[in-house]
Amino acid sequence: MAAVYIAAGWEPVAVFELFVRQLPSRRNYLVAAGLADALAYLETWRLTPDELGYLFDQPAMAPLGPAVRERFSRLSFTGQVEAVPEGTIVFANEPILRVTAPIVEAQWLETALLAIVTYQTMVATKAARLVHAAGRPVIEFGSRRAPGLAAGGSAARAAYIGGCIGTSNVEAGRRFGIPIYGTQAHSWIMAFPSEVDAFAAYARVFPERPVLLIDTYAVPRGTERAIAAWRTLGGVRIDSQPLAILARDVRRRLDRAGLSAAKIVASGNLDEYQITELARGKAPIDSYGVGTALVTSDDAPALNSAYKLVAIRQHEQLSPVIKLARAKATYPGAKQVWRRLTPAGRFREDIIGLSDEPRPAWRDIQPLLQTVMKDGRRVAEPERLAVISARVADQLTKLPPALHIVTRRSGYRVRYSEALSRVTRQCRREQR
Amino acid sequence: MAAVYIAAGWEPVAVFELFVRQLPSRRNYLVAAGLADALAYLETWRLTPDELGYLFDQPAMAPLGPAVRERFSRLSFTGQVEAVPEGTIVFANEPILRVTAPIVEAQWLETALLAIVTYQTMVATKAARLVHAAGRPVIEFGSRRAPGLAAGGSAARAAYIGGCIGTSNVEAGRRFGIPIYGTQAHSWIMAFPSEVDAFAAYARVFPERPVLLIDTYAVPRGTERAIAAWRTLGGVRIDSQPLAILARDVRRRLDRAGLSAAKIVASGNLDEYQITELARGKAPIDSYGVGTALVTSDDAPALNSAYKLVAIRQHEQLSPVIKLARAKATYPGAKQVWRRLTPAGRFREDIIGLSDEPRPAWRDIQPLLQTVMKDGRRVAEPERLAVISARVADQLTKLPPALHIVTRRSGYRVRYSEALSRVTRQCRREQR
Repeated sequence: MAAVYIAAGWEPVAVFELFVRQLPSRRNYLVAAGLADALAYLETWRLTPDELGYLFDQPAMAPLGPAVRERFSRLSFTGQVEAVPEGTIVFANEPILRVTAPIVEAQWLETALLAIVTYQTMVATKAARLVHAAGRPVIEFGSRRAPGLAAGGSAARAAYIGGCIGTSNVEAGRRFGIPIYGTQAHSWIMAFPSEVDAFAAYARVFPERPVLLIDTYAVPRGTERAIAAWRTLGGVRIDSQPLAILARDVRRRLDRAGLSAAKIVASGNLDEYQITELARGKAPIDSYGVGTALVTSDDAPALNSAYKLVAIRQHEQLSPVIKLARAKATYPGAKQVWRRLTPAGRFREDIIGLSDEPRPAWRDIQPLLQTVMKDGRRVAEPERLAVISARVADQLTKLPPALHIVTRRSGYRVRYSEALSRVTRQCRREQR
Repeated sequence: MAAVYIAAGWEPVAVFELFVRQLPSRRNYLVAAGLADALAYLETWRLTPDELGYLFDQPAMAPLGPAVRERFSRLSFTGQVEAVPEGTIVFANEPILRVTAPIVEAQWLETALLAIVTYQTMVATKAARLVHAAGRPVIEFGSRRAPGLAAGGSAARAAYIGGCIGTSNVEAGRRFGIPIYGTQAHSWIMAFPSEVDAFAAYARVFPERPVLLIDTYAVPRGTERAIAAWRTLGGVRIDSQPLAILARDVRRRLDRAGLSAAKIVASGNLDEYQITELARGKAPIDSYGVGTALVTSDDAPALNSAYKLVAIRQHEQLSPVIKLARAKATYPGAKQVWRRLTPAGRFREDIIGLSDEPRPAWRDIQPLLQTVMKDGRRVAEPERLAVISARVADQLTKLPPALHIVTRRSGYRVRYSEALSRVTRQCRREQR
């Protein structure tokens, strides 16, 4: 595609927007995430000599002259990016990110931007649901089951943004400054001559309120051994079903031993639906470790995200463009999302308008998209993860409460401005 | 965990096996993949000074002396690995890979090995289902929707192993030598002043049987424009529904124009169930591009994979170990999988036995696990991807036909050898 633009001498400035077309049936909102990584990708994007060599060795590329190769060798991102701040709650069709750049660059970067933003948004959203369902700390435990090693790191980052208190992925802790947590694996307990030996060895090395995994062999006996192992036991992890019953028994045993401060961490293929049941049944669980369901977003393992051309600028003339294909029709023009709040500061409705139309006249209204990159450079330092995470927590309190119910589909009002609707109608007429 | 082993002076050799506990309800077999990447990880695994610095800055690590840090700084993988050749069909509980190594190393590597092997196995399996359903070429189109940028590359590799003929991910083409394919994006068509301009520009630059995307605005008109654009049109891509109807109309138009050699590529959120319907209805589709469903394995987005300790060797004494926790109990001891074939060479049944028990006496039996790494080094060069892919294709023809039906659950007989059953009973008794 890039080669044809160059060879055809058709190189306008293009405006692309990244958004999610529809929410999965089990999602009432999305937590936008991955933006910092997307910007880092844009800033460092180059074609290496190896990559160029491979590309121009392809028979399909043979018709292209050295001019195209030379242009490719000089490519870097020189455009502008508007985006919602990372951690912003967004809904279907709301641009998460907009790229305005020479069309060769803007087109080329589609795959990377979609892959980075979609996955982290999916995981951050899942984390927000889990944390809400739990009503207590949730730790991301999923790297083992993540879609590859790199995804494990991104998932840890996104999960922290979505509200998890930390991760078991030590490398993600180092790279992103996320608090790290962990106990032992069953295999670790099994490696010692006995469970008693394993607990004793652990508590000797980490005497500061150790947390011990008690279900490798049998939970009641494991609990008693953990209690016997260390006077200032920090807590226990239960990784087996039936969690509600086991947790109650373990709690009784801990309390009876005078360890009422010792915590119970629950894990083992948990999701927001099971956690909702456990919370409803008041299972005495102090925190949850969630892995597979979180890093794969198992009940909604894909988002219908798109990166669509919305306008073309040629000779200072900006023209909105549109796609008409059934079920995938797009809205033309560079957009802004205005979020209208209630007097109490809650989300009331969103209006998707044109980026250059006047700000709606209501009070309590916020534009979501901001300029984050100019001439290929970030306009500000990346935000700290704690800032992003706090933004999510704040916005989640402002969401209409029905949207938090993990078992029920609830809509939020998002409408299009008069000006955007008018341009859309006009584009459709022209295309037809 | 590693620190406690070292500090406690408990450092036996450990034997870990990686396997999938149960198959998802929509999977009748698995295509083992990711082994080459797992071995590459083991060969290069080290802790960098940065990583060590971070780790020992953690308050939890404060109790550990400099001896542990010094040991960590010298860690590398020195063990042995047995594995099934990449692309082998496997079933639940069959070891895909076994690590025999000093326990600190073997334990540490759990997360990486599981993440690498599980994701690629999941995608290769999904690809095999898609290719079987299609009965014609399938191209991996999913990088945009992959769980992050790195996962897109792994997915392309795994999809090719599973039977896809290539990928739209050019970087995966370069890294793994996978054939690359692609047409244009809708946005690319939209970027030109008109569809006619876009088609003409493309065909001028790539005159060798160009494939054009015809559904940006309206399929019938797009088809006629593609036909008009280039006398030797290679084909068209349709990315909209209803595919069966659109494909029939497009085929008629192409044939009428004398372009009976022009191919129809179909794409657009396809999966093996839709493709089965299209194939059943004899839709005139020549090849499929599949993205989201493939790279997320959407109907089974996680595999219940595990990396479990099965034996410990201390002072030349090898002891099998076992986990008893309900629903997650393991079988002890290092294992071999024997695959018994019918006289016609089809898979008849698998026997999971101990690796050191005598080879069963039947004819037509193959051991699946082979030594692939010794003393931390591969015993052979990595296999070429085409070899792995051919292995899958060959083994799929030997699978009982019922296992290929994507809409029906079918079992395959896998049993445990007498010797393994005996050791398991004995271990259970001892633990109890």
